[in-house]
Amino acid sequence: MTASTDPPALFHPCGLVTMTTDFGTTDGYVGAMKGMILNHDARLRIENIAHGIPPQNIIHGATTMSAAAPYWPKGTVHMVVVDPGVGTDRRALVAVAGGQCFVAPDNGVLGPTLDRLGPFHCHQIERNPDTEPFLPVDLAPTFHGRDLFAPIAAALASGSLSPHQTGPRYEPLPLPRPHPLRRGNRIEGTILLFDHFGNAITNLRREDLPDACAAQLPRSETVVALCRTYGEVAEGEPLALIGSDGYLEIAIRNGHAEKGLRLHVDDKIQVSES
Amino acid sequence: MTASTDPPALFHPCGLVTMTTDFGTTDGYVGAMKGMILNHDARLRIENIAHGIPPQNIIHGATTMSAAAPYWPKGTVHMVVVDPGVGTDRRALVAVAGGQCFVAPDNGVLGPTLDRLGPFHCHQIERNPDTEPFLPVDLAPTFHGRDLFAPIAAALASGSLSPHQTGPRYEPLPLPRPHPLRRGNRIEGTILLFDHFGNAITNLRREDLPDACAAQLPRSETVVALCRTYGEVAEGEPLALIGSDGYLEIAIRNGHAEKGLRLHVDDKIQVSES
Amino acid sequence: MTASTDPPALFHPCGLVTMTTDFGTTDGYVGAMKGMILNHDARLRIENIAHGIPPQNIIHGATTMSAAAPYWPKGTVHMVVVDPGVGTDRRALVAVAGGQCFVAPDNGVLGPTLDRLGPFHCHQIERNPDTEPFLPVDLAPTFHGRDLFAPIAAALASGSLSPHQTGPRYEPLPLPRPHPLRRGNRIEGTILLFDHFGNAITNLRREDLPDACAAQLPRSETVVALCRTYGEVAEGEPLALIGSDGYLEIAIRNGHAEKGLRLHVDDKIQVSES
Repeated sequence: MTASTDPPALFHPCGLVTMTTDFGTTDGYVGAMKGMILNHDARLRIENIAHGIPPQNIIHGATTMSAAAPYWPKGTVHMVVVDPGVGTDRRALVAVAGGQCFVAPDNGVLGPTLDRLGPFHCHQIERNPDTEPFLPVDLAPTFHGRDLFAPIAAALASGSLSPHQTGPRYEPLPLPRPHPLRRGNRIEGTILLFDHFGNAITNLRREDLPDACAAQLPRSETVVALCRTYGEVAEGEPLALIGSDGYLEIAIRNGHAEKGLRLHVDDKIQVSES
Repeated sequence: MTASTDPPALFHPCGLVTMTTDFGTTDGYVGAMKGMILNHDARLRIENIAHGIPPQNIIHGATTMSAAAPYWPKGTVHMVVVDPGVGTDRRALVAVAGGQCFVAPDNGVLGPTLDRLGPFHCHQIERNPDTEPFLPVDLAPTFHGRDLFAPIAAALASGSLSPHQTGPRYEPLPLPRPHPLRRGNRIEGTILLFDHFGNAITNLRREDLPDACAAQLPRSETVVALCRTYGEVAEGEPLALIGSDGYLEIAIRNGHAEKGLRLHVDDKIQVSES
Repeated sequence: MTASTDPPALFHPCGLVTMTTDFGTTDGYVGAMKGMILNHDARLRIENIAHGIPPQNIIHGATTMSAAAPYWPKGTVHMVVVDPGVGTDRRALVAVAGGQCFVAPDNGVLGPTLDRLGPFHCHQIERNPDTEPFLPVDLAPTFHGRDLFAPIAAALASGSLSPHQTGPRYEPLPLPRPHPLRRGNRIEGTILLFDHFGNAITNLRREDLPDACAAQLPRSETVVALCRTYGEVAEGEPLALIGSDGYLEIAIRNGHAEKGLRLHVDDKIQVSES
């Protein structure tokens, strides 16, 4: 992931703002952010991507944003707030890629999305004469979602602020996550997270793998064949498949692989040609 | 449930699209679908009905859609994606009833809604010259929500596609669920699901029951009277009532009947005149 | 909390309606309410604040609304439906404060919000010639969210009904919650609720506390210092801080204080100068 050195990317806001957070749906956090956005400009339209990112789980937030962003129209502003470093000196950033704009803490949470959308520019969000009018005098040290990301996203989405006005260009931090390893004629992947259905999502992409292959599960002799869809195995049986986002998954048909196969984040999956 | 043989129903889209899914709020599934819809036409308005349908639970999804749909304006497009058969040869359908339009897998998930809204027409969604422009070249075999239902719903909601253009008319599958049984002077119902409050929702409707009656709970001597509202019993006490959607429920006032009364899906409830 | 005796407050609706409920995201309750609102006027815009308020937890609902409402534009109608008394003789109310409008059961759930937004007026919602056109003939005795609060909120948000037309002015019930106690040179607070991250939110506000202080946890010798932000302690360590909404919280940095410190609602926290 390397930011482009080309001239600043053009971004023409379409009035849409999306939210991806770990704030859940029991408290006022999401509602306060939405209020901030609509108080800036009540014509903006807010869409929830996900508020159930597991708390402080940057890899999960990054994967969720990356799975959704490619399908949105140019001109969308995406806010991603999974921010365990809030109140420390971690930076905040605005990125432009593929005609869309992203606002997030600089902790890698945008990494896979920017990799996927192609050439991008990043700007560090600063308090400067251009951003000043949109920011509270004091930011709550534990809730930059409300006091920093929401007002900046709203100003970008309404056209009151351009991405390059938020601050200097710079290189964002990469997402710290394991890479696939080649071990002899096997490829070793890692379970990054479990989705809502209990499917284990790995870091292996289709193009990393042989056409026909099988995956050996951790702490077990079980080997599951790579299938095209759930229907190729019986109900309750395990399988491997390439998920809708392009990564190898371990699943149980109409079941819960995390519980049923006792899998864990960071478990290794060995894939061999079959 | 039998589709009408009348001429094609008229449907005039109002730009609203609703979503009812079992995709949860932790991953990119819902966000990718929303992006697909707004990328087709950014003026469409998306409203979430529910994304917490228990995974693959068609009866729960059907009940949720049926409880909400009657209150929506004519011209709404409702998307219901609870789709354990994705990637098999299960069909996909568009239905028109009561001036509203529904897009869903053909697994019975629309059954109670269509029963309730009156005469309806169904069309099987095919890849044909009318639908082709809206569909990706390859559908992800595990995520028709994003690649089939969302683009078809968006095209219907924007008026780019009419329901009858999606494919031939046909009869959708019914929802497989138990029917009330009359046993002597008792009526036997079945618990279909538990709602968010832990109330047990049965398949018995008000019109199936005597005016004054009581329900015997399973594996127990407990008999609870049919009340009009929670306030008729003390806090923590069980009761039976007709829920806001017209079905007999077993509840605990300000409590959780599933846990408190150890009830299960498919448990039988015996109702007698009192 | 005392309602103002000034002339009726002006309220100019901006077309936004928010929802804060304990209805969850698995059933048709929220969807039926949204349908009712948009069936009244499809141009209204609905935003979810939170649907995951713990069932019947009025204090949690009140805290969530109070944390979000101050950030919304004038003209917003906020619906708060946490309603354990539905079907009893509890009253329903409309309140106007700070140019915003609130619709809720009269059980204290609006208390902290009205305290915070300043002078307010309340009206009891009655079936009268002005409200009659918007209400169903029979209200479902267990779901006033759909049959009473949603249609009244929609009528207020569309300008079809003014707050003072809903019924007579009166004084709403306060929120029943404990007050801080001064015990010698200590201040005793109470844990009111846990947020989504497991942080314990107390009833102590910044202005109740000495500049430098520390909090003793219940059933323990542990004393935690009041910090400004999470980053001042190591990962996994407990701390006290003033949350983004102004209340003292007990937290664990990137951890879950409720589980990690075995805290409970109604636990007492002793704060002393340090």
